[in-house]
Amino acid sequence: MDSKPIINRIASQMKKHLSSESIAIMAKQTRVHLINSLGGFKSVALVGTSDKQGNTNLAIFSSIFHIGANPPLMGLIFRPTPPERNTFNNIIETGYYTLNHINEGIYRQAHQTSARYDKEVSEFEMTGLVPKYKDSFFAPYVAQSNIQLGLAFREKIDIAINNTTLLIGEIIQLYIPEDCLYEDSFIDLEKANTITCSGLDSYHKTVQLDRLSYAKPDKEVTSLIF
Amino acid sequence: MDSKPIINRIASQMKKHLSSESIAIMAKQTRVHLINSLGGFKSVALVGTSDKQGNTNLAIFSSIFHIGANPPLMGLIFRPTPPERNTFNNIIETGYYTLNHINEGIYRQAHQTSARYDKEVSEFEMTGLVPKYKDSFFAPYVAQSNIQLGLAFREKIDIAINNTTLLIGEIIQLYIPEDCLYEDSFIDLEKANTITCSGLDSYHKTVQLDRLSYAKPDKEVTSLIF
Repeated sequence: MDSKPIINRIASQMKKHLSSESIAIMAKQTRVHLINSLGGFKSVALVGTSDKQGNTNLAIFSSIFHIGANPPLMGLIFRPTPPERNTFNNIIETGYYTLNHINEGIYRQAHQTSARYDKEVSEFEMTGLVPKYKDSFFAPYVAQSNIQLGLAFREKIDIAINNTTLLIGEIIQLYIPEDCLYEDSFIDLEKANTITCSGLDSYHKTVQLDRLSYAKPDKEVTSLIF
Repeated sequence: MDSKPIINRIASQMKKHLSSESIAIMAKQTRVHLINSLGGFKSVALVGTSDKQGNTNLAIFSSIFHIGANPPLMGLIFRPTPPERNTFNNIIETGYYTLNHINEGIYRQAHQTSARYDKEVSEFEMTGLVPKYKDSFFAPYVAQSNIQLGLAFREKIDIAINNTTLLIGEIIQLYIPEDCLYEDSFIDLEKANTITCSGLDSYHKTVQLDRLSYAKPDKEVTSLIF
């Protein structure tokens, strides 16, 4: 099936228009669904931590983003209220955490980690996701995850406008299935079975459309694949 | 084809292990490919702006993320060096910008906007993407985009550790195809043909695996779809 007609149908069809005023009067949960959907498909991963006593914690995050490659930095947004407090406190207290990609085999368990378990309960134990310690890194990885990153906490930035917090970490360890790492260091996330999410609760696998050449003003981009 | 055996094969297979030292000595472009791939699939959209004289600019960004739902805030990371300077300056100067989802019909043109055109050249004109002004909003939307957001600049945060900048904007206008907006305000991005990206140059459409129920400690999550 050619996708063009579908795209044009949508682009030309009736759109719902909402503005600040109509967003402001929405019921809280409705607004949360809407706004969380608006940015597009998101990076989603499991953040693994431990307190100094070795009590592990695991939490799903979809507010993960690239900040820079040299040094290799990732950002994570924390809400002002309790849900991910254990993760936050463990990172600040110990300085280390892991980011573990989610695949088709574990996304239900990953979603389950968002339940509000008591502090002394480990989400690893409750979901069947297995903590794995490697190369003397302080925080636990998720054994079932195909791409695993070990990060060191570097900077905390308070976002005054809505009392959220941005934590920045440096990637100091990483594990990738050998056949997913290309010669130019592009990682084939699809081959690694990494999934993406949208909104608060929707999970998606992907189908690659193309890899495109570096764009130049005087040249049309070409496919790096076909 | 059952996906389970594939997942297990990958999880148990040989992994490449890299640490800080080996990342630090990589060639710049190799490191950029690697680190940009590590966070997982990313939100990707076209940022539309105009200067006070009405000269339009359009740039692709994959460092877009949700900061909060009330008020509805999105973040955008800018690198320290020139590539997206026009976008940055226009946002600071005029206070407004648009975020336009990318679909299968326009991802090549979207990628082409990353070419380093001179300041006086509009990426709209060079790529065939059409600027569209709506409801007296200052910045131009992309006509071919199915989901369009209009944002007002709210906060600029300098990230000292690598000289990047976080710009925070509030969503004050939004346009969504009517049949993609569900009753609970979840947006069906797949139906809207929104795509995702990985690394610097790979584009992907998605296939929904499931929507899952709100997770509770004493209950297994269930599907909201089937």
